[in-house]
Amino acid sequence: MASQKPSIPKGTRDFGPAEMVRRNYIFSLVREVFKKYGYLPLETPAMENLSTLLGKYGEEGDKLLFRILNSGDFLSKVAGEDLLEKKSSKLSGKISEKGLKYDLTVPFARFVVQHQNEIGFPFKRFQIQPVWRADRPQKGRYREFYQCDVDVIGSKSLLSELELIQIIDEIFAKLGMKILVKINNRKVLAGLSEVLGHGDKMIAITMAMDKIDKIGLEGVCKELREKEISEGAIEKLKPVLSFQGNSSEKLNMLTDLLSESAMGQEGIRELRLLLEYSDEVELGCEIELDLSLARGLNYYTGAIIEVVSTEYNIGSVCGGGRYDDLTGIFGLKDISGVGVSFGADRIYDTMDHLGLFPDKLLKSTQVMFANFGIEEAKYCLSLLNKVRKAGIHAEIYPDPAKMKKQMSYANNKNVQYVALVGEEEMKNQVISLKNMDTGTQESLTVQELIAKLKTR
Amino acid sequence: MASQKPSIPKGTRDFGPAEMVRRNYIFSLVREVFKKYGYLPLETPAMENLSTLLGKYGEEGDKLLFRILNSGDFLSKVAGEDLLEKKSSKLSGKISEKGLKYDLTVPFARFVVQHQNEIGFPFKRFQIQPVWRADRPQKGRYREFYQCDVDVIGSKSLLSELELIQIIDEIFAKLGMKILVKINNRKVLAGLSEVLGHGDKMIAITMAMDKIDKIGLEGVCKELREKEISEGAIEKLKPVLSFQGNSSEKLNMLTDLLSESAMGQEGIRELRLLLEYSDEVELGCEIELDLSLARGLNYYTGAIIEVVSTEYNIGSVCGGGRYDDLTGIFGLKDISGVGVSFGADRIYDTMDHLGLFPDKLLKSTQVMFANFGIEEAKYCLSLLNKVRKAGIHAEIYPDPAKMKKQMSYANNKNVQYVALVGEEEMKNQVISLKNMDTGTQESLTVQELIAKLKTR
Repeated sequence: MASQKPSIPKGTRDFGPAEMVRRNYIFSLVREVFKKYGYLPLETPAMENLSTLLGKYGEEGDKLLFRILNSGDFLSKVAGEDLLEKKSSKLSGKISEKGLKYDLTVPFARFVVQHQNEIGFPFKRFQIQPVWRADRPQKGRYREFYQCDVDVIGSKSLLSELELIQIIDEIFAKLGMKILVKINNRKVLAGLSEVLGHGDKMIAITMAMDKIDKIGLEGVCKELREKEISEGAIEKLKPVLSFQGNSSEKLNMLTDLLSESAMGQEGIRELRLLLEYSDEVELGCEIELDLSLARGLNYYTGAIIEVVSTEYNIGSVCGGGRYDDLTGIFGLKDISGVGVSFGADRIYDTMDHLGLFPDKLLKSTQVMFANFGIEEAKYCLSLLNKVRKAGIHAEIYPDPAKMKKQMSYANNKNVQYVALVGEEEMKNQVISLKNMDTGTQESLTVQELIAKLKTR
Repeated sequence: MASQKPSIPKGTRDFGPAEMVRRNYIFSLVREVFKKYGYLPLETPAMENLSTLLGKYGEEGDKLLFRILNSGDFLSKVAGEDLLEKKSSKLSGKISEKGLKYDLTVPFARFVVQHQNEIGFPFKRFQIQPVWRADRPQKGRYREFYQCDVDVIGSKSLLSELELIQIIDEIFAKLGMKILVKINNRKVLAGLSEVLGHGDKMIAITMAMDKIDKIGLEGVCKELREKEISEGAIEKLKPVLSFQGNSSEKLNMLTDLLSESAMGQEGIRELRLLLEYSDEVELGCEIELDLSLARGLNYYTGAIIEVVSTEYNIGSVCGGGRYDDLTGIFGLKDISGVGVSFGADRIYDTMDHLGLFPDKLLKSTQVMFANFGIEEAKYCLSLLNKVRKAGIHAEIYPDPAKMKKQMSYANNKNVQYVALVGEEEMKNQVISLKNMDTGTQESLTVQELIAKLKTR
């Protein structure tokens, strides 16, 4: 067979060792914090039935699903006329029944409904798995990427929102990232639209408000007019848009403004209680009420949460909210949930940019035994065995190659010590240990070598 | 939309918390041992180009690939007559360019060739990822399953075979599984076929030998005759088949038998050296030369390795071998590699059957604070904060539900302690701590609680 120039599908990535150890550092740390707060691990299949996925992400989302071609003779049940029509979208429904998962939320909802009699509620789970979207690949956007979700389902308590904020606080503190947590509440936004006399235009209003940093107050007003928001409503909204104050002052302002909206008052009560709770737990990060935060407004029903780095402008590194009817579509009504998703790629990029990854991550093997030939290698095997039994990461270069080649292998792999055991060392039962950082060399017994490396 | 009864594609699985903690226990342990021996992590995409995958697993394997339907209007470039032919196999090549990976070996070879200028050789990597096969699902066989591969590529040294056997030994010892490592060598099998006068029938002969446990000596001879092996050859093979002796005695027998075959002698030399090496490293498991071991004979060129549990009959739990020309197909010649793959599902089943998973795996949250209402919960938040700061896994029940419900939640989750803090406890600044195992209750300060749980 002719040899092929190998490549991978566009929008996908290989993660070599240097990236893997850093990605695993993030995932391990995140996982440990999730567990500390009582969340349990879950994994669902890469493939879901298309009936599970379709219609959950809007029309655009349906188009971005990767579909799996049915196995075997997939055309056998397709009528000739269906084929000649040449309608891809129609045919795909007949030759494909499965798709790759698009996010972790819908499979989680499917899992909860399917296993509702086996799991206890509230159910607290985390899930760290890849998802796939047939999006146009661009910088920072991939067709395969990991999501890292943490959710509690089966409780309406705001203690869950608090817990997620505590988790966010602890994770980013441990990663060394300085962050701001923005919160909002759909009920407040609904109340605001209501008192503005545009209860049906909540999303349009919030979307316009969201642009204030980019297009300024006048720009927002212009957009509101384009969305057919009345002048009276715009005048009423202006003081909200230009309001300067902390979260508590904002809530006081809103309490007056939304006094006529029961929904708005409920949203304010929720935000107040969440802030009261957060005062009890000594958070390291700041929480800011941001009324323009519109993220995922289509399905969130209560709290909306978004996290940004205060040191690197890369968009949100974590976000989520409360959804009251996620499992309804699968037949399980009245189960409220709240969750956030950590953006592994953006966290990685931020940490890389700010130099936050510990240097030690790139060190793996602590000592490499050089290879001087079969007899020397055999002799080294029992030394190596003792060293490994002590828990030290160690290896032997497999071939009696030129010393330069062996040293360069150790160097490329960030191995700090190379053990040289030739005829002379074998006779004296010692190891010549070369420090690859300093170039210095010392003569040690195997016990001394173990003692030296174990304390490091 | 009407609600759907949720399900997952056949042959796939959800892994709930109880399975996940046990699976992760296996994967973490395996990963730590790989690292200790100097192997580095790698991940490749779930999807590969079909040009990478096709033709690498035989005709049967090609059929078992899951293919991804091209995105967008995938029919636009397909001619009408191609459609009317209704040939699924022909059409699939025109509407699908990507497939889900079938194993980790071919993507690894593709990675090595694609990144040959970035990685140093020998390259030692491990990879733990799911693979997909459109096989008929049955007990113990899934359409999505994890593989757990460890390979070294770019060296012909038998020290690599030894290293893999050491890794096998250490992993199964740590998992608590008693195992037997079977080894064989393709060169010996080739030499044997050569001296039998059937150099072209190595695979048929080995396959027949492989059945001796099931069909006995006479059955093997019968099968050899059916495969048109001469009577002379069968007579010559009989003493090999009925030979009783340890690995070293087997090698002595073979040395005589294969004296005329250079290839056979080379195989014997390799096996001898590997056994000599293994004598230097105090293995806990037994290594047995098994001349009927035929596993993957189509592509292995030297050592063949297979591991079985000596306590549970479930087939091989790990296996692999040396392959001299894996990257050739992608244009990189003369790179020899050797690797083994751990069967996560079979290891899981064996450990489950033998009760080898530690009980502590199912414990996650150490203490749950019961919820008596908003004020009590608020008070508990700062206690909870202190407890978590001490590294203790803790949570609060999110709702002020009936105590029976809260206790049953704690019970289902294997939480050992429930902290009860009501009006009385708040007044006295104590915590009533209930031991869920014994039912006993004691009154503690938060510091005493921390001291108690930290030492456990």
